[in-house]
Amino acid sequence: MTSDIDVPRSGWAAEPASLLRTGPGFVLADVDPNGTPGFSGRKKAGMGELKTAADVLSDMQERLFAASKGDATDAVLLVLQAMDTAGKGGIVRHVVGAVDPQGVALTAFKAPTKEELSHDFLWRIKRAVPGPGMIGVFDRSHYEDVLIARVRGLADETEIERRFGAIVRFERDLVDRGIRIVKVMLHISADEQKARLLQRLDRPDKHWKFNPGDIDERQYWPAYQEAYQAVFERTSTEVAPWHVVPANKKWYARVAVQRLLLDALTEIDPQWPPADFNVEEQKARLAAT
Amino acid sequence: MTSDIDVPRSGWAAEPASLLRTGPGFVLADVDPNGTPGFSGRKKAGMGELKTAADVLSDMQERLFAASKGDATDAVLLVLQAMDTAGKGGIVRHVVGAVDPQGVALTAFKAPTKEELSHDFLWRIKRAVPGPGMIGVFDRSHYEDVLIARVRGLADETEIERRFGAIVRFERDLVDRGIRIVKVMLHISADEQKARLLQRLDRPDKHWKFNPGDIDERQYWPAYQEAYQAVFERTSTEVAPWHVVPANKKWYARVAVQRLLLDALTEIDPQWPPADFNVEEQKARLAAT
Repeated sequence: MTSDIDVPRSGWAAEPASLLRTGPGFVLADVDPNGTPGFSGRKKAGMGELKTAADVLSDMQERLFAASKGDATDAVLLVLQAMDTAGKGGIVRHVVGAVDPQGVALTAFKAPTKEELSHDFLWRIKRAVPGPGMIGVFDRSHYEDVLIARVRGLADETEIERRFGAIVRFERDLVDRGIRIVKVMLHISADEQKARLLQRLDRPDKHWKFNPGDIDERQYWPAYQEAYQAVFERTSTEVAPWHVVPANKKWYARVAVQRLLLDALTEIDPQWPPADFNVEEQKARLAAT
Repeated sequence: MTSDIDVPRSGWAAEPASLLRTGPGFVLADVDPNGTPGFSGRKKAGMGELKTAADVLSDMQERLFAASKGDATDAVLLVLQAMDTAGKGGIVRHVVGAVDPQGVALTAFKAPTKEELSHDFLWRIKRAVPGPGMIGVFDRSHYEDVLIARVRGLADETEIERRFGAIVRFERDLVDRGIRIVKVMLHISADEQKARLLQRLDRPDKHWKFNPGDIDERQYWPAYQEAYQAVFERTSTEVAPWHVVPANKKWYARVAVQRLLLDALTEIDPQWPPADFNVEEQKARLAAT
């Protein structure tokens, strides 16, 4: 039985899943952060798509949640990584925000606490893995432990290598447990980041989002790009591939990630679970009350 | 300085906060579950209000969140209690779901686990209290420990009394810490529940929401109404009053709870925090990158 939810294909001339997926030979430096791969329209069409598909996403999330009340163990895990200001928050708000909050488990990973540091780097990650029926969202993730850790020298090369291996095995375990992993790097240009940081400085209602440390991090831009390149080479697997989503145009990044989530849900194809009680019997009981 | 967000008053002829609040002399049995106290329009106007005010709620939530990045410790805690099918889930989806998921901390309290039972009843509750800047939502709460516990005899009268005292002190502590508590009982009639349960039985896509135990609970309806009455008498305080929201009309319950949340946020009146850095200095630093 296939899903009877019709996923609209309107704005997409080609599937972002295949266009954005990183595989052998992928070079991050070759990706244009201004691009809109696969989407045939411009901003207005993109905004329309985002709205229309939000209802589909919401319906499918409800089915995913419902199916877990039966035998299904499927879940979705969206992993969001990006340089500062690239729009992770906007994805959460405008894409994930369209579905029932009861079906979403959002975790924002900050610099690890003392307790977290006393455990293996995956300890805090494993505690946040979504349960059956849930859409988990990691705003930053275990990939910080091979990104900032590498760029800022918080771990040596041997340890970074160990982590790559551990990550690949960990994600394989999740997939085997029925968790579909959607890994997304939002890709902006250094100039775009500069413009966005300037906007935060220009608007008093955005000052709270600004941190002087964001400017310090900018000097490591090339090192971060290299670290991301290594991440894609080492951890983009068949079962849990990375997607690099051009994000200079916020509307594009949002429809693209929305689409990747829809693809994951379409592949799961969650079904309403059958009743585990006799419907007519329960109707009779209810009528007698 | 007062908020420059204009809270629309359109559909409300009188404030639900004062109309729905339970105080001395309140009698639950006198509340009409079909009522729409204070709202001048009908369903269509209510749905319009829900949509318009959602944007205001979303803006105010962002301010609340932002303010916590400065010195503010304010938070909001929405406590939802109700008989089965009364619409708690719909409130979460359609009212709370309108704001940024990053600013919401939702906890659904189920029957306590063995570990939770080994602690005082407030132990698991205290762990779920929202941090500064957050809107916490309790889908069921510590009130189960004086409702089902009383109706099903899980605790004796002395223990129930102790709990009432503990709850009042606990909530006073929260209020003193800057957490505004919005306590809501969604009030449906037994007939309306019957119709909603029947609908769940009639629709295969709703079977997953049905539990034969829901029919068992119906026989305790009068006992639950008495237990709620006791809850209002013992725990509706000046700083954390209860609101009984007629909920036979789902649209009314939603706009009313939305309004109560807006009131709470309006009273907090969160402000964008001032920059804790020199804006011009940072602009110059940024320009140099």
